[in-house]
Amino acid sequence: MEDWKSTYRLLTHCKHFFHCRLSPNFHISKPFCLSGSRSHCSQPSKLVKPYIGNYQQEFQTFKHLPVSLGANPWNRCRSQYRCFASQATIIQRRPDFSTISSEDLSYFKNILGDRGVVQDEETLDAVNTDWMRKYKGTSKLMLQPRTAEEVSQILKYCNSRCLAVVPQGGNTGLVGGSVPAFDEVIVSISHMSKIISFDKVSGILVCEAGCILENLIAFLDNQGFVMPLDLGAKGSCQIGGNVSTNAGGLRLLRYGSLHGSVLGLEVVLANGAVLDMLGTLRKDNTGYDLKHLFIGSEGSLGIVTKVSILTPPKLSSVNVCFLACKDYASCLKLLLEAKRKLGEILSAFEFLDHGAMDLVLKHLEGVRNPFPSSMHNFYVLIETTGSSESYDREKLDAFLLHSMENDLISDGVVAQDITQASSCWHIREGIPEALMKAGGVYKYDLSIPVEKMYDLVEEMGVRLGASAKVVAYGHLGDGNLHLNISTPQYDDNILSQIEPFVYEWTSKHKGSISAEHGLGLMKADKIHYTKSPETVQLMANIKMLLDPNGILNPYKVLLPSLFTKS
Amino acid sequence: MEDWKSTYRLLTHCKHFFHCRLSPNFHISKPFCLSGSRSHCSQPSKLVKPYIGNYQQEFQTFKHLPVSLGANPWNRCRSQYRCFASQATIIQRRPDFSTISSEDLSYFKNILGDRGVVQDEETLDAVNTDWMRKYKGTSKLMLQPRTAEEVSQILKYCNSRCLAVVPQGGNTGLVGGSVPAFDEVIVSISHMSKIISFDKVSGILVCEAGCILENLIAFLDNQGFVMPLDLGAKGSCQIGGNVSTNAGGLRLLRYGSLHGSVLGLEVVLANGAVLDMLGTLRKDNTGYDLKHLFIGSEGSLGIVTKVSILTPPKLSSVNVCFLACKDYASCLKLLLEAKRKLGEILSAFEFLDHGAMDLVLKHLEGVRNPFPSSMHNFYVLIETTGSSESYDREKLDAFLLHSMENDLISDGVVAQDITQASSCWHIREGIPEALMKAGGVYKYDLSIPVEKMYDLVEEMGVRLGASAKVVAYGHLGDGNLHLNISTPQYDDNILSQIEPFVYEWTSKHKGSISAEHGLGLMKADKIHYTKSPETVQLMANIKMLLDPNGILNPYKVLLPSLFTKS
Repeated sequence: MEDWKSTYRLLTHCKHFFHCRLSPNFHISKPFCLSGSRSHCSQPSKLVKPYIGNYQQEFQTFKHLPVSLGANPWNRCRSQYRCFASQATIIQRRPDFSTISSEDLSYFKNILGDRGVVQDEETLDAVNTDWMRKYKGTSKLMLQPRTAEEVSQILKYCNSRCLAVVPQGGNTGLVGGSVPAFDEVIVSISHMSKIISFDKVSGILVCEAGCILENLIAFLDNQGFVMPLDLGAKGSCQIGGNVSTNAGGLRLLRYGSLHGSVLGLEVVLANGAVLDMLGTLRKDNTGYDLKHLFIGSEGSLGIVTKVSILTPPKLSSVNVCFLACKDYASCLKLLLEAKRKLGEILSAFEFLDHGAMDLVLKHLEGVRNPFPSSMHNFYVLIETTGSSESYDREKLDAFLLHSMENDLISDGVVAQDITQASSCWHIREGIPEALMKAGGVYKYDLSIPVEKMYDLVEEMGVRLGASAKVVAYGHLGDGNLHLNISTPQYDDNILSQIEPFVYEWTSKHKGSISAEHGLGLMKADKIHYTKSPETVQLMANIKMLLDPNGILNPYKVLLPSLFTKS
Repeated sequence: MEDWKSTYRLLTHCKHFFHCRLSPNFHISKPFCLSGSRSHCSQPSKLVKPYIGNYQQEFQTFKHLPVSLGANPWNRCRSQYRCFASQATIIQRRPDFSTISSEDLSYFKNILGDRGVVQDEETLDAVNTDWMRKYKGTSKLMLQPRTAEEVSQILKYCNSRCLAVVPQGGNTGLVGGSVPAFDEVIVSISHMSKIISFDKVSGILVCEAGCILENLIAFLDNQGFVMPLDLGAKGSCQIGGNVSTNAGGLRLLRYGSLHGSVLGLEVVLANGAVLDMLGTLRKDNTGYDLKHLFIGSEGSLGIVTKVSILTPPKLSSVNVCFLACKDYASCLKLLLEAKRKLGEILSAFEFLDHGAMDLVLKHLEGVRNPFPSSMHNFYVLIETTGSSESYDREKLDAFLLHSMENDLISDGVVAQDITQASSCWHIREGIPEALMKAGGVYKYDLSIPVEKMYDLVEEMGVRLGASAKVVAYGHLGDGNLHLNISTPQYDDNILSQIEPFVYEWTSKHKGSISAEHGLGLMKADKIHYTKSPETVQLMANIKMLLDPNGILNPYKVLLPSLFTKS
């Protein structure tokens, strides 16, 4: 789940927490199942479109805002240099990249028509800026192709002219991967948004890369299916971007990663070659499965233009419960029990600690504590999704009773309707907004083996002492920790206490410094904390094989310095 | 499922078909669930070890055996040339590959000790020969490293000496991928068979590549987990080989492909570099996910030495039913209904046509027709796996009643115990053996969009007329058709009626000419039926990047001619 986006999903309703509560003796109330999946519980939401206004002024205030920009916020950088990430990384525009000429514009207009060549300043300002307003490029040109063939012509030309390109979908990424670092040509896939086919027997959907995720979810809902992927950003993000960043999201625990559900891709390479890997088969062992190279490569190896994806049937019964645990060990035992007892109907297992709950209760309007009489150390949200309302609820009730009897749960509530379920999710999804309201925040999206996960939070707490509040939540079922350090205001001293410690600790415990957001600009220089030098060098070699001029999304994922070695 | 291996799985027991039968009005009997998963229903079985004896004599009879060797069976080829696949493909030993010298042997003995360097003729004869006895190499040397470091030293040396290498696991492949084509050095991973770690909370297993699948299944069973992969060959096949061939198997419908469940790999490249990608994380978006290159590349890009895999919890309730359908359209509707109504507990959806059933009843001992009063056009085997015996059975019963009422099922039986369930599976899994007994057989392992799948069978039937019997069965839930043409004896005229028609038809309908067995030697020249020229060329470029001397499993997957172009 993308923390920042999700804030906008559920905050506008569900003012009251539900009154049905299962206190220590767990009163299991009459079976109730929510119709439709959780994503339908929330109000349809669109993400706020990128702000169009005086960015300069706003950016100057960023050092006072709760966004960690590092010691050299990029608005202070000279035009040829940019500083990124928490600990500043300075990159320089590659001098061998061309700049747009009038001949280039004529060529593009010839291919795309005037409408496909955008030079309007206001629009460019928006698409140069990421959703977080943390990164801003200076591109003077956005191209809007409508077919893979047009993308091919664009890339072939840009490659021959050594014009750098940044592919852009819904521009909802969180690591600066979807906006130019300097003056790259923005190639938007937004106008490629047709659904090509859907097979109701196999559940296989084929569509163009610019389809907005929410539109695909709605389309499939009518067909009785669901996307295996759901994100807070679904109102804006596009499936091509989802694939390119290997978005994790809310359904990963149940339906696995896109490496499992994406069956085929059409991709345009830097040299303009259109790679047709758009299979619609669950099984195909004919040669290397190259599509996986493009899943999660953040647009740096090719531009995804079509996607074939396996979609599961929609299941009618959804249950949500919110539980309190006395310690982290109990959360882990509960996860194990949930996997065993709920088995095939378990669809989410999220956790938050008391610090996160405390922030939500303090800073978010309309949130009520489900357990008002006492605070607990940990909270767990469990969701089940299945095909039989009564069976699923009985299974959940049996699991809850068993967990109570075994002292894994201190307290708990089961949602009785959609509003109550939304309220449960609101607590979990409201944490990012609460953090923003609390002051400065340093955010880390980490994968860590679950047994070790909370050790980092505790060590960080000891390390920082009273100077900051360490808050943890995340997708425990996926081993994904969102570690947040909340401070009254941004402070370089605190940052130096956090980094590189947090990356070193994660690396030492075989974790990932980016569980689901990717590397983008923000963490391109930190890849070595998770990947071995040999692996990184092979990535660089593959990049050079597929994009020898390095025109595709330069400066992202892999630092340019990697390409000068060989 | 690997057809040929599975024959050995269930044939030794279950002589009687069960008597409980749900005839037209579907008498739903009292709930019953099988304890343990289906794989535990069968007797533990080991595959027959490669035959050690007078192969020459046996091979000479192959043209009369039901194995399609093509117009030029390889036993008739000269030593420098080999003919493979159904329609003969002639390959030549690469003259630039070195041959083993006494210095080479000294070097290897120095690394591995005498025990790790095998030159014994009898053993070499076995490991030179594939399980089907269809392919046989002339290697004079098998190496048995015990660590990745030893594999690294071997490959570094072989690469420097231009000695070709064939990696070998359990040698249970069906396309000649795991045996030498000529005199390649066999690098066996069998002595690397340690389980390294298992995390009961996350279900993540880390082990060496030489672990036999059945041993892993048994280990996990004790821990309350299952492998997401099960094969007929499990008694011999090794996890490194499974990963390298991207084995499909019996649980794909439920748990997806290895691209979804393999979390990390350690791989040794041709130059000896050890690539540590052995993550144990469900989510890790730090750069390109290179492990996928090695899943299904059949040992041609590197040797897998360690595997990290996500394993699901073992579920206690298994149900099996065997159903009759009047036409293929009903099978498809039933599949759709099963996905909807059984949803999260559906674990297998297999089909066979009347020709397949006819063969099984005629040629296999101890098989009884579950519907003795009449033959039907199609049969479907459905398995459910869940966590609640009573709930799962009620779900299945409701689904069956609904399907009967909607005329999707003509007749059906539900297994009442393990023996009955095994009998159901025995019919499905016994088809390959029945085909072998019936005479000559041409076998095709195809993925085809399910709606079109049976059209091929019908067209082939019309095409061949009375000269052959066209028999179809397979994993309908996965879109995987096993198309078999049964003839009294091998006949070049019939073969020319089948090929290239079957590949062209599959290609035209966007299918795959190898759903789960890989390309190996058998189909390396047929990749273009499924993959576009640009994709194949990129595969070749990646092969050249990772293995510039082409020492790893040469002649397999991609024809050597692809590497001379650039």
